Amino acid sequence: MNPKLQWLRNKMSSLDLQGLIISNPINIKYLTNIEAEGILLLTRKENIYITDARYIEHVHSILTLYDEIIVYDMNDVSKEDYENFFMFCENVGFEEYYVTYAQYKEYMRKYKINSLVETEHIIEKQRMIKDEEEIRNIKKACEITDNCFSYILDYIKPGMTEKQIANEIEEYYKERTEGVSFDTIVASGENTSKPHAIPSDRKIQDVDIITIDMGCIVNGYCSDMTRTFFVGKVPEYVKPVYDLVLKNQTQTTEDFKDGASTRLLTKMVENDFKLNGYDLVHSLGHGVGMEIHEAPYISYRSDTQLKENMVVTNEPGIYIPGKFGVRIEDTVQITKFGCINLTNSEKNYIVICQWVSMGTEKNDTAKM
Amino acid sequence: MNPKLQWLRNKMSSLDLQGLIISNPINIKYLTNIEAEGILLLTRKENIYITDARYIEHVHSILTLYDEIIVYDMNDVSKEDYENFFMFCENVGFEEYYVTYAQYKEYMRKYKINSLVETEHIIEKQRMIKDEEEIRNIKKACEITDNCFSYILDYIKPGMTEKQIANEIEEYYKERTEGVSFDTIVASGENTSKPHAIPSDRKIQDVDIITIDMGCIVNGYCSDMTRTFFVGKVPEYVKPVYDLVLKNQTQTTEDFKDGASTRLLTKMVENDFKLNGYDLVHSLGHGVGMEIHEAPYISYRSDTQLKENMVVTNEPGIYIPGKFGVRIEDTVQITKFGCINLTNSEKNYIVICQWVSMGTEKNDTAKM
Repeated sequence: MNPKLQWLRNKMSSLDLQGLIISNPINIKYLTNIEAEGILLLTRKENIYITDARYIEHVHSILTLYDEIIVYDMNDVSKEDYENFFMFCENVGFEEYYVTYAQYKEYMRKYKINSLVETEHIIEKQRMIKDEEEIRNIKKACEITDNCFSYILDYIKPGMTEKQIANEIEEYYKERTEGVSFDTIVASGENTSKPHAIPSDRKIQDVDIITIDMGCIVNGYCSDMTRTFFVGKVPEYVKPVYDLVLKNQTQTTEDFKDGASTRLLTKMVENDFKLNGYDLVHSLGHGVGMEIHEAPYISYRSDTQLKENMVVTNEPGIYIPGKFGVRIEDTVQITKFGCINLTNSEKNYIVICQWVSMGTEKNDTAKM
Repeated sequence: MNPKLQWLRNKMSSLDLQGLIISNPINIKYLTNIEAEGILLLTRKENIYITDARYIEHVHSILTLYDEIIVYDMNDVSKEDYENFFMFCENVGFEEYYVTYAQYKEYMRKYKINSLVETEHIIEKQRMIKDEEEIRNIKKACEITDNCFSYILDYIKPGMTEKQIANEIEEYYKERTEGVSFDTIVASGENTSKPHAIPSDRKIQDVDIITIDMGCIVNGYCSDMTRTFFVGKVPEYVKPVYDLVLKNQTQTTEDFKDGASTRLLTKMVENDFKLNGYDLVHSLGHGVGMEIHEAPYISYRSDTQLKENMVVTNEPGIYIPGKFGVRIEDTVQITKFGCINLTNSEKNYIVICQWVSMGTEKNDTAKM
C-alpha cells in the first residue's frame, strides 16, 4: 500500500475508526495523486475510490497495483453496495471541516452509518510536515518567484498600470510553471495601505511605493512572497515604518523554529509594532504547500507549535489607512534550530528607476 | 429596504423563520452587492453584516441607507452580542448546502440557537429567475463571447498548440471583461473525445477537429458557449455525429420553454442519441448567472420546471472514446413560448484554413 495510505490506516486504528470517508479533493490528491471528482473510502479491508465516467481513464493512469485502491464508476455502484461498504463499522470518520451539513446527512443515509465521527483535520495536520519531494517543489516555486521578481523590477516603468504589471507577472509564471498560486497583488501609492488590494488602473508615478504579493505553483506546490519597494527614491516618512517591518521580519527568522508557539511569535511582533504606535492587522504567516493558505496559521487566534519541515510564510506588515503600507514576506522551512529562507529576494530598500527623480531632486538620493 | 432583502423577509415569514444566517458569499452579493468575507444575519428586526477590518471601508462604500443593513467589525462583536442576535427566535434558517458540519456546530454554539433549520436553497431558487439587469449582463457576456469566437477562428493556424489558443482567448477576455467564467477548454483531434479536456501541447494539424468551450464574466455575470469545428475539411465519418448533435441542439430550442421538465428534455435527447447508438454522457445543460454552473440543472437526475427568465445552457454532446467528440452549446433565455438564443455564433459546419487541404485533396471539399 502506498505509505501515505498506510500512515492513515495506522492513524485510524489509534483513533478507533473502522472506516473513513475522505471528500476533500486536496486530501485525496495528497494521499493518492488522483486529481478528479470523487470520494475515497477506507473501509475495514479495502481502499475504494468512486468517481464517474469522465475520470475513470485518468484515475487508472495514475494508480498502480501498489496503491491498492479499487476504482469504481459511480454508475456501477448500487444502493446495496453503498450500504455494505461500512457494514459492521462502529465509528466512521468524516471531514467535518469540508463536508457540508447537507452532505453529512446524505452520508448517514446513503452509507447507513449510525455514528459519523469528526476527525479534526487529521490529514491536514499530517500535510503540515513536508517530505523531501514536497520541499523540493516549494523551493523550486520560490526560486522561480525570486527570478520573476528580478525580472519585474527591470520591467516596471513609471506610467505603467498596476494591472499591466500583474499581467506581466502572470504571463511570466504561465510560461514556466503551472501558473499563479493566488491572484497577484500589485498595489501602488495609497493602494499599498490595503493588505488585499486588487490591481487597478492606477499608473506608477515617477516617485512611488509599490507592494507586490506573488507566487506560483510547481508540481502542485505553491510559493508566496511579498516585497514593498520604491520608484525614484525612498520617501523619508516611509523609512521608519519600513525599518520596523524589516526588523521584525528578520528577527523572527531566528524565532521561527521547531517548538516555537505560533501565538507567542505573533505576540512578539504585535508588541513591537504597538510600542511604535502601529497595529498588526493580519496574521503573521500561514502554512504553504498544496494550498497557498494551509495549516499552521501563525496568528494570535491559533496556538500551534512549529515543527521541523513545516513550510510557512513570515509576513509582518504595517498599513496606514489612506497613506501607504509595507509588507515583507518570505516562505521559510522550519528546522530544529531556526529556519531556512526559501525566498531569497533582497529585503533592504529596493529603489527602481532612480534616474527619474535624480534630475529633479538631487539632494534626496535614495539609499540602496 | 432593498427589494431582494424585502423579498427574502417575506419568504422567511411564509416559512415561519424568525431568523436567517446567510454564509454563501455569492448569495450575499446577490442580496446586497457586497463582495467581501463576512456573514449576513437577518434577525427579527435588523439586517446585520459582520465582516473584518480589511473590508469595512469597501462595504460602507457599497451600501446606502436604503439597504437598511447594519455593518459590524467582527472585533467589536462580543460573545453576548452573538447570543442576543437570535434571542427569542424559534426557528433560524441556515444554508445547509454551503455550511460545513463544523460551521453548523459552531453556529449552534456561538448564536445559542436550539433549532437551526435547513432552508433548501431558497436564495439559489430565487436566483434562477433573472431580472432585466441580470439578463442584460449575461447577454453582453454572450456577445463578447461570440466576438471572441469569430476572432479566434481567424487566429487559429495549423501548428499552434491547444494551450496557445486557450491563452489567446483568455487574453481577449482579459482586455474586455472581468476575465474567463471558467478555465477555457481547447481540445483537438482525439482530445475532443474528453468532455472536460485540459488544453495540452498538442499541435493543430492541417486537417483537424477542434472543440472550444469558453465564457467570460461581465458585471459579475457569466456566459458559456461551445463549438466543435474543423480545420481543412469536415471528415466524412464525423458528419453523422455532428448532424445528430446539431439536430438535437436545434430541436430543443423549441422545447426549452416555460413549463418544460428538465428530466423530460434530457430523456428526449438521450432517446434520440440511443436510437443512433450513442450515449448522452453529461447533463444537457445548467443555469448560468453569477456562477457558471448554477440551478436549474438539466439532467435526468433533477426534475425542475423551466420558468420564464431562467437563463440556461443547451449543450448536447457525443463523445467517442479515443476518437473524437462533438458538442454544441448555447446560452439561452427561457420565455413563455420557447427560448431566446443569447449565443449567436454559427452552428452549421465551420471549416477554417480550408486552403491547407484544398491543394492535396481536391475531391473532398468541406461543406460550409
